[in-house]
Amino acid sequence: MALIVHKYGGTSMGSPERIQSVARRVAKWARAGHRMIVVPSAMSGETNRLLALAKQVSPERTTPELLRELDMIASTGEQVSVGLLAIALQAEGMAAVSYAGWQVPIATDIAYTKARITSIDDKRIRADLDAGKVVVVTGFQGVDPEGHITTLGRGGSDTSAVAVAAALKADECLIYTDVDGVYTTDPRIVADARRLKTISFEEMLEMASLGSKVLQIRSVEFAGKYRVPLRVLSSFTPWDIPIDEEARSGTLITFEEDEKMEQAVVSGIAFNRDEAKISLMGVTDKPGIAHLILGPVAEANIDVDVIIQNVSHDGRTDFSFTVHRNDYARTLELMKTAVIPHTGAAGLVGDDRICKVSIVGIGMRSHVGVASKMFAALSEEGINIQMITTSEIKTSVVIDEKYMELAVRALHKAFDLDQVPASA
Amino acid sequence: MALIVHKYGGTSMGSPERIQSVARRVAKWARAGHRMIVVPSAMSGETNRLLALAKQVSPERTTPELLRELDMIASTGEQVSVGLLAIALQAEGMAAVSYAGWQVPIATDIAYTKARITSIDDKRIRADLDAGKVVVVTGFQGVDPEGHITTLGRGGSDTSAVAVAAALKADECLIYTDVDGVYTTDPRIVADARRLKTISFEEMLEMASLGSKVLQIRSVEFAGKYRVPLRVLSSFTPWDIPIDEEARSGTLITFEEDEKMEQAVVSGIAFNRDEAKISLMGVTDKPGIAHLILGPVAEANIDVDVIIQNVSHDGRTDFSFTVHRNDYARTLELMKTAVIPHTGAAGLVGDDRICKVSIVGIGMRSHVGVASKMFAALSEEGINIQMITTSEIKTSVVIDEKYMELAVRALHKAFDLDQVPASA
Repeated sequence: MALIVHKYGGTSMGSPERIQSVARRVAKWARAGHRMIVVPSAMSGETNRLLALAKQVSPERTTPELLRELDMIASTGEQVSVGLLAIALQAEGMAAVSYAGWQVPIATDIAYTKARITSIDDKRIRADLDAGKVVVVTGFQGVDPEGHITTLGRGGSDTSAVAVAAALKADECLIYTDVDGVYTTDPRIVADARRLKTISFEEMLEMASLGSKVLQIRSVEFAGKYRVPLRVLSSFTPWDIPIDEEARSGTLITFEEDEKMEQAVVSGIAFNRDEAKISLMGVTDKPGIAHLILGPVAEANIDVDVIIQNVSHDGRTDFSFTVHRNDYARTLELMKTAVIPHTGAAGLVGDDRICKVSIVGIGMRSHVGVASKMFAALSEEGINIQMITTSEIKTSVVIDEKYMELAVRALHKAFDLDQVPASA
Repeated sequence: MALIVHKYGGTSMGSPERIQSVARRVAKWARAGHRMIVVPSAMSGETNRLLALAKQVSPERTTPELLRELDMIASTGEQVSVGLLAIALQAEGMAAVSYAGWQVPIATDIAYTKARITSIDDKRIRADLDAGKVVVVTGFQGVDPEGHITTLGRGGSDTSAVAVAAALKADECLIYTDVDGVYTTDPRIVADARRLKTISFEEMLEMASLGSKVLQIRSVEFAGKYRVPLRVLSSFTPWDIPIDEEARSGTLITFEEDEKMEQAVVSGIAFNRDEAKISLMGVTDKPGIAHLILGPVAEANIDVDVIIQNVSHDGRTDFSFTVHRNDYARTLELMKTAVIPHTGAAGLVGDDRICKVSIVGIGMRSHVGVASKMFAALSEEGINIQMITTSEIKTSVVIDEKYMELAVRALHKAFDLDQVPASA
């Protein structure tokens, strides 16, 4: 008998019929002997409807006082969901009870609309589980030290589910969503992209550009911190498929290095075409030059991703970095007005038609030559590499965006990602 | 500088524009130097929408567990309202904060969907008022001793407003609604029905059949218990009418006997055509006969209103009572199966085409001949009286329903209710 947390997204909760279907699926798990906690999102469209009402009343949304009220309003979407799901479970003959975040309580800091969970009291939930009840807990929300309602930001219900699983020491947290797992890369680009049965927590974080379509990245960080086994699986399978089959479906995100996981060197190909590249040519290479260039960018609240500085020749170097495309024009302007006058750069070059392609794999730690294999595969396709960065389990290249699909397909093939790897 | 509670119904909160209008009205009062608490209802239609969702998920609504979840769901309508109103007030430049019932807290018993308020903690609200904030509190809901959300039943926001006013010792509680006050009788029946400037708490209770269209009767009882001055006034006046004019409008429900109130003998004519009459003829007149007849009715959870037992002749009496028309058929059946076999009644007569017309007035206490004047007025119109009951400040007659309008008009005229009475 395991303690299991289920999380259902807004689409799964989108109508009374779908809520009944969720209830039947949960009841199936409970009848199989599991202790069940369910964290549903608001019905699809509900959070947007509520925030639109608020915007009609007052278009501004800046002060903490206003953000507090937005949380008061937005949190009701999940409260309705938990009540409806508890009723649907009762109609299925299950004992069930719902709780809003403040009733558990799920304690957070005071950062309205983007609060972080600080602690979860497990007593109330545990007492209900002991009494044989299915416990339905609101996602997305908590309560601050002063008793004000807070919300965790968009997608926060994933984080709520993982946090509740961590607090209750659940055996597994199942995230039901509209995709059936994590893939080696985007199946819309590579037709034979393969669903991974397992992926490590660290790989999942690096796969963020893919993973963010599946899981809120904060929920993965939370799962990593508290070592909560997390499974992403489809909410579109019929509720009455055999429970053993369902329990093995999707992708398991693991934290046990020694678990029998797929031992591919590279687990997936991630990509991102939201970035733009900026290069300062012939900058005087002196101590503090990086800060001189990026300081004004940071002050303007612009995130920098890749940063490259080459070795210098004749006391001069080229300095390149990438920012989000939305910040491209603003960053170029900053270079002209606030940076070049102080650095004596010989030239400024920008390009917003680039993309970043990454190979991700925990096996890269112990295998040499992985990066060279990547560069060779790209070279064979005649793709020029503009920038390279590496981390322990990831190698990223920046290339012309027109080659993106080609590069992803070439790398997917070069690393045999269409093949199921042999178990270790 | 007074402490004032405003209560707004669902129609007043029905759209973002209307909420902005409420905010401007409240801001006008606050700028005039008053300390303001506002209790808004859910946006019109919202509670019905939420309960309809629940019904679609599970048509049954019987167990306490299910009722608990209904309260979880239904309470969100008011939570959205308070958040939106607080934002609208902030947009008007007012410091404002909203609270759900559990945050105040407004403590109730555990009777889900029809809970009663047991106490209200005034500390949090008072601290915000002291800090110069407008405090917006959810109506309709509270929290039970175990921390579960409860609701007070339909129209409960009136009661919430009065309870908050009582707890904070407010100087006046203003109920903004879609009628502009309490009338001598229904203006749809008597064209020259007159709005009362004041009405006593006891009269208001007796005028329930009129008053229930204006105020939830429990809120009047609550106001009476805690002596909260209550004013019913229109939410349809422009928000920017002069505050002095607004403060004198509507009808004030008072608790001070010695206040300068209108000293009419009769204040209003109430009527009710929801009842049906049942008579048992020739019942053996023995001790306990009333219980023998009405015991089975009470056990079937049927409310009895008027009860009449005449003096007996030859050891036999006639026993009559009225019930709600919806319970008429069931009550007749009960008489046949569970009562007549034990009472030996000679006959059973029922009539569901009756109505009850009442004259109400605190002045009846000190004036004789009021009832006779009523009977005379009806007699002049050829209206036969079927039953009579009296209380200290009310005389009611049961008549054929076809005479209802005629009777109301005749009594309105007989007691000069179209004339403004001289002040005492």
